[in-house]
Amino acid sequence: MSDKVRLASVGLGRWARVLARGAQRGDKVELYSCFSRDPGKRAAFQQEFGIERSAGSYEELLADPAVEGVIITTPNDTHMDVITQALRAGKAVYTDKPIAHSLEDANRIAAVVAETGGVFAVGHSSRRLSGHREMKRWIEDGRLGEVSLAEANFSNERGLELTPQTWRWYADKSPGGAFIQLGVHHADTLQFLLGPVKNVTAQARKLYTKSEVPDAIMAILEFESGALGYIGTGWASPGVYTMNLLGTKANLMYDLDFTHWDESHLADDWSTLKSQFYGESVRQPVELPRTDMFREQLEEFGLAARGEATVEVGATEAVRALAVVRAVIESSARGGQAVSLDEVIDSAQASPALA
Amino acid sequence: MSDKVRLASVGLGRWARVLARGAQRGDKVELYSCFSRDPGKRAAFQQEFGIERSAGSYEELLADPAVEGVIITTPNDTHMDVITQALRAGKAVYTDKPIAHSLEDANRIAAVVAETGGVFAVGHSSRRLSGHREMKRWIEDGRLGEVSLAEANFSNERGLELTPQTWRWYADKSPGGAFIQLGVHHADTLQFLLGPVKNVTAQARKLYTKSEVPDAIMAILEFESGALGYIGTGWASPGVYTMNLLGTKANLMYDLDFTHWDESHLADDWSTLKSQFYGESVRQPVELPRTDMFREQLEEFGLAARGEATVEVGATEAVRALAVVRAVIESSARGGQAVSLDEVIDSAQASPALA
Repeated sequence: MSDKVRLASVGLGRWARVLARGAQRGDKVELYSCFSRDPGKRAAFQQEFGIERSAGSYEELLADPAVEGVIITTPNDTHMDVITQALRAGKAVYTDKPIAHSLEDANRIAAVVAETGGVFAVGHSSRRLSGHREMKRWIEDGRLGEVSLAEANFSNERGLELTPQTWRWYADKSPGGAFIQLGVHHADTLQFLLGPVKNVTAQARKLYTKSEVPDAIMAILEFESGALGYIGTGWASPGVYTMNLLGTKANLMYDLDFTHWDESHLADDWSTLKSQFYGESVRQPVELPRTDMFREQLEEFGLAARGEATVEVGATEAVRALAVVRAVIESSARGGQAVSLDEVIDSAQASPALA
Repeated sequence: MSDKVRLASVGLGRWARVLARGAQRGDKVELYSCFSRDPGKRAAFQQEFGIERSAGSYEELLADPAVEGVIITTPNDTHMDVITQALRAGKAVYTDKPIAHSLEDANRIAAVVAETGGVFAVGHSSRRLSGHREMKRWIEDGRLGEVSLAEANFSNERGLELTPQTWRWYADKSPGGAFIQLGVHHADTLQFLLGPVKNVTAQARKLYTKSEVPDAIMAILEFESGALGYIGTGWASPGVYTMNLLGTKANLMYDLDFTHWDESHLADDWSTLKSQFYGESVRQPVELPRTDMFREQLEEFGLAARGEATVEVGATEAVRALAVVRAVIESSARGGQAVSLDEVIDSAQASPALA
């Protein structure tokens, strides 16, 4: 038997396959089992990734002592039950972002993590992109100076393709639409780079999607540091993934070709980070070490399950990213009025009965 | 005597020289006279641009029947007096943007334009940049589809260099700081591209400038079309000038090297417009015909002074651009609450006694 950490995939859709490919690019974790309610999906997933076994029920999977951790890619509104069940069964849990569809569920998950002392990781992978890691180095070593404006966009065409058969169509399952699915990445990455968000001013509109959720959202974030951040996110255009940081000493512009997002081992080849200092007419490309965000986060998670690593993005970070989503929705409903992030987090804790 | 339209420069600082060079690159207008209260500046300006005469007072300049139009680059808070005096003297008037420092002054200027029937042009030059003209064509012929998100940034380092000796230091002379000086360009260009703005949600902060005015401003614009727009503008970083349009059929990304802004006949050589359609991994450069925004607007103005052309940006457009600035300031003061553009324009008209 190999010494790789034995993980099981739960929820075997498109994203489970992207993550499975990421895990199999490395040598630290092994896809040992899998579960979906659909036996056909289980069989196909086993075959595609050479997985020896699958479980006939989630309970059966969690009862298997060989399973060290689960990789959850079920719909956002199922996260709380699926995650807390696994934590209570003593399994380490990795879940795709966002941590949950609601801040109330997210807070309950955080409480169970604290209560069980379990290993819990959330797939806010984008902060691991080589360009963002490099931005962090420039901030920390002072090359950027003080950042006053940080601007990011994450958009694609999914809103135009949604149908009532997909859970992302529904406001109660995916509140915030494009923002909870795409913008939440930047909500995490910007806090990774610039520290905690203080408040959020936003407008969210449903323009061209036929679904129930907004497909055009713009949000202004004020950070506790004083910096202003912007996240634009849409679901009605060709794919865009950008972030620009404007500092008193230099600017950094990051641009990643979204069509290569899923192949995280190649994404760096399709992205550019450029620096701009005063008086330079041509922006200089910054060399980026190659990374592989999906592989890295699953290996970190696997090692953490054995106590050999620490999870970078856990419940605390994921709750703050989701709180930005909630603040965006509330600010837009209040005509743009700034909504405090702490207030949003506290009020979700104060009303545990609300879903 | 040449048949060129005879114009006179008023206010002979840095910007007057940029515009004079623009005018002299063409063959339709002639710098015939000039005025500044400082005789030394007048002499230097005459010498630099080969201008035969200057006036000892503004009244003398306006009394010269040979002067067909004036080019005004005096501080924003002097615009109303300088402009209305010239209009009442029967001169065509070109003024640098913004039309005035306050919406009340702007409304008074608009009233005098209407009353005198004079020719009046405002230097919202950036909408003439080749990239923006091309964007307009893509919108009009349907290549972009429906635009849901439009994002723009115009920033530079001026806020770090301001001193109490410069009028831009003061909140009563340059309210809105970086936004009234830089952001106002995008406020005009975005309305040129996407139609009227309905309301504005904004946060303005004074972070790194020692002056009285904000140097970090982010604004979300809702257009009457439904589209959302974003303008970011800062005064504490190397120069940035960008605009991205995200449409249901394609995206357009425009990036202009700010260090070449003043040399508008070369700016196109330092700018790129790229298109992105679905499934394309590499954005395609869009060829841009060469333009010269400063020359063009002054030639259009000169010909308009003779009734041989129509001014593209007059009081109406300039008031709407300045109204965005006012709405930004008010929204930020109200904690981000959306401020209606029509409300802002109407309330400035209702209180003519306020400066």
